[in-house]
Amino acid sequence: MSGTEIDRLVELLAKLPGLGPRSARRAALAMVKRREALLLPLSRSLASVAQSVRHCTTCGNLAVEEECAICTDPARDGTRICVVEEVSDLWAMERAGAYRGRYHVLGGVLSALDGVTPEALRMPALAARAAAPEVVEVILALNATVDGMTTAHVAAEYLAESGVAVTTLARGVPVGGELDFLDEGTLTAALSARRPL
Amino acid sequence: MSGTEIDRLVELLAKLPGLGPRSARRAALAMVKRREALLLPLSRSLASVAQSVRHCTTCGNLAVEEECAICTDPARDGTRICVVEEVSDLWAMERAGAYRGRYHVLGGVLSALDGVTPEALRMPALAARAAAPEVVEVILALNATVDGMTTAHVAAEYLAESGVAVTTLARGVPVGGELDFLDEGTLTAALSARRPL
Repeated sequence: MSGTEIDRLVELLAKLPGLGPRSARRAALAMVKRREALLLPLSRSLASVAQSVRHCTTCGNLAVEEECAICTDPARDGTRICVVEEVSDLWAMERAGAYRGRYHVLGGVLSALDGVTPEALRMPALAARAAAPEVVEVILALNATVDGMTTAHVAAEYLAESGVAVTTLARGVPVGGELDFLDEGTLTAALSARRPL
Repeated sequence: MSGTEIDRLVELLAKLPGLGPRSARRAALAMVKRREALLLPLSRSLASVAQSVRHCTTCGNLAVEEECAICTDPARDGTRICVVEEVSDLWAMERAGAYRGRYHVLGGVLSALDGVTPEALRMPALAARAAAPEVVEVILALNATVDGMTTAHVAAEYLAESGVAVTTLARGVPVGGELDFLDEGTLTAALSARRPL
């Protein structure tokens, strides 16, 4: 290759999810080739993100201030808290555009093996938020995986004292889903949660 | 999402080859999540590449000085010049480790539609290099595409005056290739270039 600078860039890019050594090389070359359109703006953008982006002290979302744009938005419904695993899940919910309440980002799922405790996932902070008088519902929007479900049950225990309604996302056939391609668990859940048309 | 900084980073990452909006979001979040291991080193690496990496004035490879590491390496064979389309092709040749001569990176292929002329591809510069007394062979290692072959023929015309031997990479069955999966063109080329075992 051409000197340690590019090698180092390729090596770092290859650590990003979805990029291997080959695509990292392509990406690095594309940057060098499109210096004004890609390399310089990316360099500035990364420096700006590194300097200004942090985690919201209330909900764990990404923020440029002490609190994130959702926590400080007076138009959002403060009576509901939607609990998600990661910021990417929060983004997915926001893209759906169906939720106008606030969030709580755990930052992962419980894992005895990896030493991830309820405290590491900010569950006490969640319980404290849920105990506020205006909160009426906590929606557990965790992934429908074994780890996600375990985490949801422990979170529900933490929330039991606060007396808020604890709900979870419905299980069923995804929009556009074909029955032939769905697993048995999803079909069983969809059948048992069937409702009048 | 969370403020314009992250949105802007995602938007720029999505312009990289092989990354779409979804993988750009994942990559941006991975950077923020692994601040010390990814975000800060990448930010520094990009700034360093933007500041120091340029094109070698002789061969067009990436370089940190006026000339690249291959052009200035006295151990490389100065009697041969391997012509490639892009820096990525040079890297592929270097990974193969079978070539110890110098390179000439065209920076693309001829294209009447896109207005890419022989001059834009530095073909006069290639002819001038080939005319040097020590050069005995120019190897045209262009892609085996229609555009690559057209470019190779025009390059050969530019090199005709210099009197050096002009060669091209062999066509045949790739190592590990199964005949059943090869196209007719490759099989025809491999058959006509067959050799005693």
